[in-house]
Amino acid sequence: MKNTDYTDKRFMQLAIELAKKGIGKVSPNPMVGCVVVKNGKILSTGYHRYFGGHHAEVEALKKCKNPKGTTMYVNLEPCCHYNKKTPPCVPQIIKAGIKKVVIATKDPNPAVSGKGIKQLQKNSINCKVGILENKAKKLNETYIKYMKTKIPFVILKMAYSLDGKTKTKDGDSKWISSEKSREMVHQLRSRTDAILVGINTVLKDNPKLTSHGQGRNPKRIVLDDGLKISLNSNVLKGGAKTIIATSKNSDKTKKEKLKKMGIDIIELPSKKLVPISSRDNFLDIKKLLVELGKIGTSSLLVEGGEIIAQSFLREKLVDKIMFFVCPIIIDGYSKIKKAIKLKNVSLTKVDGDFLFESLITNH
Amino acid sequence: MKNTDYTDKRFMQLAIELAKKGIGKVSPNPMVGCVVVKNGKILSTGYHRYFGGHHAEVEALKKCKNPKGTTMYVNLEPCCHYNKKTPPCVPQIIKAGIKKVVIATKDPNPAVSGKGIKQLQKNSINCKVGILENKAKKLNETYIKYMKTKIPFVILKMAYSLDGKTKTKDGDSKWISSEKSREMVHQLRSRTDAILVGINTVLKDNPKLTSHGQGRNPKRIVLDDGLKISLNSNVLKGGAKTIIATSKNSDKTKKEKLKKMGIDIIELPSKKLVPISSRDNFLDIKKLLVELGKIGTSSLLVEGGEIIAQSFLREKLVDKIMFFVCPIIIDGYSKIKKAIKLKNVSLTKVDGDFLFESLITNH
Repeated sequence: MKNTDYTDKRFMQLAIELAKKGIGKVSPNPMVGCVVVKNGKILSTGYHRYFGGHHAEVEALKKCKNPKGTTMYVNLEPCCHYNKKTPPCVPQIIKAGIKKVVIATKDPNPAVSGKGIKQLQKNSINCKVGILENKAKKLNETYIKYMKTKIPFVILKMAYSLDGKTKTKDGDSKWISSEKSREMVHQLRSRTDAILVGINTVLKDNPKLTSHGQGRNPKRIVLDDGLKISLNSNVLKGGAKTIIATSKNSDKTKKEKLKKMGIDIIELPSKKLVPISSRDNFLDIKKLLVELGKIGTSSLLVEGGEIIAQSFLREKLVDKIMFFVCPIIIDGYSKIKKAIKLKNVSLTKVDGDFLFESLITNH
Repeated sequence: MKNTDYTDKRFMQLAIELAKKGIGKVSPNPMVGCVVVKNGKILSTGYHRYFGGHHAEVEALKKCKNPKGTTMYVNLEPCCHYNKKTPPCVPQIIKAGIKKVVIATKDPNPAVSGKGIKQLQKNSINCKVGILENKAKKLNETYIKYMKTKIPFVILKMAYSLDGKTKTKDGDSKWISSEKSREMVHQLRSRTDAILVGINTVLKDNPKLTSHGQGRNPKRIVLDDGLKISLNSNVLKGGAKTIIATSKNSDKTKKEKLKKMGIDIIELPSKKLVPISSRDNFLDIKKLLVELGKIGTSSLLVEGGEIIAQSFLREKLVDKIMFFVCPIIIDGYSKIKKAIKLKNVSLTKVDGDFLFESLITNH
């Protein structure tokens, strides 16, 4: 028994590694990998390569000359529903004569969710479920959240100085983080369905919000309750779809102009949030997530300034944080370039805390 | 030659290790260790054990039966001045017949600063200076700063949440950092000559500001421009000396009362600092450091809240930062206890930046 478990884990690990190759290319579909095995030997493998492409199981079956009597390893329950781009996998697995299917985790999609397994079992295919389940769930955390809640998985990204500031007193924030960190964020953008900023970021920095050549561009969402955006903003230019989330009451003529430019407008009600220092009312961002979910947004990267970050945290809408803490002290300086750059910052873990130590030598 | 260098470094390293034993006990004196060697063999060692006690060289000489013709390793230039607790070391080294003195770094004290070495050389003692000099300077960074500037070496300690906050919106800050981090701070207190907080910390938390049994207690300094302190405050109670730094114009009767309780008062002029959000005027903290230097304070641990931290940073008075970043998110919560505790925070270095990642699972 133990030996079987080890073998199962080994092949499932391979399926997960294959699945990972689809990162940034398959959403809102899940990442899936598949391995077909007979007598401990791999006959074929497959993975879901891009949204709309073959499912992993189908790819593996296509490459397998004689799948009869084999065992299939797949990190997500094979699908059995029809309202989608490609035909379901379960009937093809049955037809191929597969003997046993080892599955890491059930598909949370209500159209599948155990039904795929039941169909396989009805056709006398032995199913084993739960091998490397936690790993498989982590791999598709975005897809699972989205399938269960119909709202996107939200990543909150922030970059702040070692003294906890996101900008100088004059509002300068270029650049707190290192070039490599910013490159990492561009990569992350290419792997998420949408990216969100507040209007203040657009007015101040006029960003493009693209992946800067690191991969596909996500949809760009601007939270702009008063519709203050300039029609010349970089974020309205080509390269990616842009959506402006604004108040129902904001300038109707400007909305029409924006729509003619190809920009989508989502109108949101105001909502009294948990109080934030400067203002108590804010757009209903929970409702925004519902609307984004409806148009297939399974993941959202929130890159706004402090008010945006606070709003998402206070409304408990953040699933994952990515905080870059950068070795500079900007308090008291108007420009980042003039701020204190710390050299040789040492880091020590003290229980769960992180202790940063550095000498300040440049004054 | 190379072999001699290696030998010199080895014995100097030992001198530095011995010196470290005096940590928290010798200030405002430097930490000094001494090794007496003949033909590659250690004849005796010594270190400065406590303020007012024997110097390292004298201790080592006392323990050495026949110091004639030996080489002495010492991490700081031996002293040659008289206006202090113990007689100078140089005449005793000469008298003992030491042949050679290997010194890591010159004493920055203007009363010594090369004069010790000159006296030794005049008496035909060979001097070699600069072995492990950087290490020796780091060891006594506090003493060196104090000797050169006559103001204390300032360590700014802060503890903030992963979202960059030092307290909740209701002002709660107990406790952002872990028990072990707080214990570490208590230890640090026992190694510094003085600790400083602002009046707001005293009014809100009523701290004792002692080392909580971790060693000797530092002087306690409270920045209290309006003299709002309550006469029942814990910080005014026994265990350590307390100094209140206040405005010249604050309540004279209260000042007299405090003095009768044994509290020292330092009157400071106001100074327009680099603007801080809530107020532009603040006590002249540079002048405070000068006053503290005059009474032998070679190191100061600043533990105040945000205004205090900002003031010291903006006035460029901080020599070293110690920032505890703690795995909680407190924004939007009134009490620390109710805030989001992050489990499994992962940390990645991205160039000089530190990337913290964590799933938020408790909502």
